[in-house]
Amino acid sequence: MSKKNVIVGQSGGPTSVINSSLYGVVHEAMQHPDQVDKVYGMVNGIQGFLAGKTVVLSDMTEEELKIMQSTPSSYLGSCRFKLPEDLNDPLYPQLMKALEDMNVGYFFYCGGNDSMDTASKMSRYAAKVDSPIRFIGVPKTIDNDLVGTDHCPGYGSAAKYVATACREISLDAGVYGAKFVSVIEVMGRNAGWLTAASVMARKFEGDNPVLIYLPENPFSVEKFLADVEAAFQKTNNVMAVVSEGVHDSEGKFICEYAASDIAEDSFGHKAMSGTATYLSELVKEKFGCKVRAIEFSLLQRCAAHCSSLTDVTEAAMAGSEGVKAALEGETGIMIGFQRAAGDEYHIDYVRVDVNKVCNEEKPFPAEWIIDNGTNISDEYVKYALPLIQGASPVQYENGLPVYAYLK
Amino acid sequence: MSKKNVIVGQSGGPTSVINSSLYGVVHEAMQHPDQVDKVYGMVNGIQGFLAGKTVVLSDMTEEELKIMQSTPSSYLGSCRFKLPEDLNDPLYPQLMKALEDMNVGYFFYCGGNDSMDTASKMSRYAAKVDSPIRFIGVPKTIDNDLVGTDHCPGYGSAAKYVATACREISLDAGVYGAKFVSVIEVMGRNAGWLTAASVMARKFEGDNPVLIYLPENPFSVEKFLADVEAAFQKTNNVMAVVSEGVHDSEGKFICEYAASDIAEDSFGHKAMSGTATYLSELVKEKFGCKVRAIEFSLLQRCAAHCSSLTDVTEAAMAGSEGVKAALEGETGIMIGFQRAAGDEYHIDYVRVDVNKVCNEEKPFPAEWIIDNGTNISDEYVKYALPLIQGASPVQYENGLPVYAYLK
Repeated sequence: MSKKNVIVGQSGGPTSVINSSLYGVVHEAMQHPDQVDKVYGMVNGIQGFLAGKTVVLSDMTEEELKIMQSTPSSYLGSCRFKLPEDLNDPLYPQLMKALEDMNVGYFFYCGGNDSMDTASKMSRYAAKVDSPIRFIGVPKTIDNDLVGTDHCPGYGSAAKYVATACREISLDAGVYGAKFVSVIEVMGRNAGWLTAASVMARKFEGDNPVLIYLPENPFSVEKFLADVEAAFQKTNNVMAVVSEGVHDSEGKFICEYAASDIAEDSFGHKAMSGTATYLSELVKEKFGCKVRAIEFSLLQRCAAHCSSLTDVTEAAMAGSEGVKAALEGETGIMIGFQRAAGDEYHIDYVRVDVNKVCNEEKPFPAEWIIDNGTNISDEYVKYALPLIQGASPVQYENGLPVYAYLK
Repeated sequence: MSKKNVIVGQSGGPTSVINSSLYGVVHEAMQHPDQVDKVYGMVNGIQGFLAGKTVVLSDMTEEELKIMQSTPSSYLGSCRFKLPEDLNDPLYPQLMKALEDMNVGYFFYCGGNDSMDTASKMSRYAAKVDSPIRFIGVPKTIDNDLVGTDHCPGYGSAAKYVATACREISLDAGVYGAKFVSVIEVMGRNAGWLTAASVMARKFEGDNPVLIYLPENPFSVEKFLADVEAAFQKTNNVMAVVSEGVHDSEGKFICEYAASDIAEDSFGHKAMSGTATYLSELVKEKFGCKVRAIEFSLLQRCAAHCSSLTDVTEAAMAGSEGVKAALEGETGIMIGFQRAAGDEYHIDYVRVDVNKVCNEEKPFPAEWIIDNGTNISDEYVKYALPLIQGASPVQYENGLPVYAYLK
C-alpha cells in the first residue's frame, strides 16, 4: 500500500480547544508512518486551500505541537465558506485535483454544522467519482448544537468560562448591598446550551444567576421586567443571564428592538446596542437602580487559560479517533461522543454518518427549562458538570499563557 | 497591657485580592493573642459600621480564611462614603464612641484614595481627642494610582487579566485573515496603568495590541482613525486598547461623544454607548471592515481565577504589616511597597504617612508613553512583569473556583 498524505482544516468560529483536535489529528497521523507520509494544514480552511494556502504540520516537534494544542482559536485560521449544493459544480473536480496533486488520502475538517456540510459534500462527491480519498468530520462548537453526539468539543471550556465568570461577577456585583442588576449576554443565537451553563455558577440555593433566559423559549420584555421585580423580593443582587439570541414570540430578536428604538445619529448611522445593554437600560428606567450590561463576547470562546481538561482531552480524542477511522477505511463520518449509562462519566467515541449531522441543530431540551422560562433544571447540571472538570493545561511563561501562532 | 479588639473594613471598588489583605489582617492579628482579643469586620465599610453592621472574623478557621483569601470582591461588602472634612462634625465622636464600645484598639481600612482619606481623618480626629485607637490604611486599587507605593495590591492581578485576555482575543480576532478591528475598553478613568498592561499581551514584535491609548494623553478621534489606517499597512488584525477615561484636549470624554451623537429614542431615553462601542462604529463606517467592541467591565477586577500569586501574596503582606505596625504603636500610616534597587525583584514594606497618600493620584509616567501616544515603552514592561507572576491560588471543586461568601 502506498503512503498517502493527510490534510486537515479548521472552519467556522474558533474555540478554546479546536487546536486540541488539530493536535489529535496530527499526533495520531504521525503514529502511522506506514500509511501516512506528511500532514498538511489548510490555512483558512477550504477557502484558503482553494487559494493554494497550505502548511506542513508533520515537521512540528512534539513540544511545538503541545503548545499549539493548548492555544485558543484556530491555529490554521478559519473561513466561512459553503460548498455548492450541486455536486456537478466545477469547484468539486478542482478541489479533488488539488487534493490528488498533493497525494492526499485522508481529509479532516474540524468545525460545526457548516463544516460537517463540507465533509458531507466532499465525501459524496468522492463516492460519485470513485475517489479513494476519505473525508472525516471532527466536531467543534461552543454552541453544543450538533446532533449525533452527546456534546461537542469546545462546549465544556466555554461552559466553564461562563460559569466561572458569572460566579465572579456576582460576588463583585453584590458589594454595595444596594439594588443592582447585572445583565450578562452569552453566545448562542439559536441554541441555549451555553447560556444554561451559567446555572453552574450558583454556590448555594437562590444564588445568582437568579434569572436565565434561553432562545428556545420566546422572550417577553414585560415578563422580564416582572421577573426582575419578583427577584428583588429575594435579593438586591440580581443577575440575569440572557442568550444573544433571545427573541419574542414573533421571532424578532430583542437586540433588534434596540436598533429600532434608537434613532439615527447625526452621522446617519444607527447606534448598535446589544441585548444586555438594551435590557439593562430598561431595568434602570423602571427600577431606578444601578445596572451593568456585560457581554462575554469573544472571551467565552477563547479563554483557554480557563479551559476544561476534560474538553481538551476529548477534543484531541475526536481528532485522533477520526484519523483511526480514516485509516481503517471510513469516509463520510463524524466522530461523535456517546456517554455510557450509569453514574460514572465515560465517553465512547463513535462514528456517525456526517450526512445526518450537517445542517441539523440540537436545541436545548424543553424539559430542562423550568420556572416559567427563567431557570435550568438539575438534570442539566448533572449532564454538564463532567464536561467542565480539570484544569487547563496551558503553560505559563513570564506570568502569561504561552500560545502558538502560525509564522 | 489590656487586650484590645481589631476592626477591619473594605471600601471602594473591589479587586481580586482585597480579601487577601483582609486575610493578612485577620491572620496576623490572631498571631498576637497577648495584645488582640477579637477581630471584627465592618460590613459595608464605615457606612455599615455606622449602622451597627459588624461580624466576628476571628472565629473563622484557617481553612475558611484561606478560601476567603482567594475569593474575589470584598468579602465584607463595600461602601463609597466620604467622612466630613470638618473634624468638628458630630459624626466623629459618634464613630469614636462606637469603636470604644467595642473595645477596639486597632482600626484597619482597606481601599484606594477615598479609603485612605477615611484613615487619615480618623487618625487626625483620634489625635485631636487623644484617643489611643490606631488607624491604619491598607492599599488596594486596580488603578495603581496611589502615591507612596511602588504599586498597589489589586493591580498585578488586573494587569495579568488584561494581558491574558488581550492575548487570547487577538488570536481569535485573526482567524479569518480579513481586516478586523477589535477595540478593547479597560478601566481607569484618570490613570492609564491598567490599559498599559495590555502591552504585555504581545507575543512578538508588532503583535497586538498594535494601538494603546491612555487617558494621560489627550485623545483625538481623527488621529485614532488615522492610526488604524496606518496599522492596516502592517496587519489586518488590528487591536486597539483604550482606557475608559480617554478624553479630548478639552477634557470631554470620548464616551460622551457617543451620548451626544445619539438621539433620544422613542421612550425618551438616550442609548448608552461605551467608548469602545463608539470607536468601533466609527472604524466600521470609515473602513467598512468587521469590528468588535469588548469591554472588560467587572471581569478585569474580579477574575480571581486568573490572579497573580505575587499580587495575592503582597496583598496579604500589606494587611499583615499593617497589623504589625499598629501593634508597635503606629497610627495614621498606610503600608507602602518599596521596590529594592537592582535586577532582582524584591519588595520592602514601608510605613507611609497616610495624609500624604489620600486624595493624590499617581499618573502613568509620561515618558513611558511612546510612538505619538499609541504605545508603551519597555521600561513599563520591566516594571510590570514581576507583578503578574505566579498562578492563582484558587481552589477548585466540581471544575469551578471555590469562593467564600458572608452568610
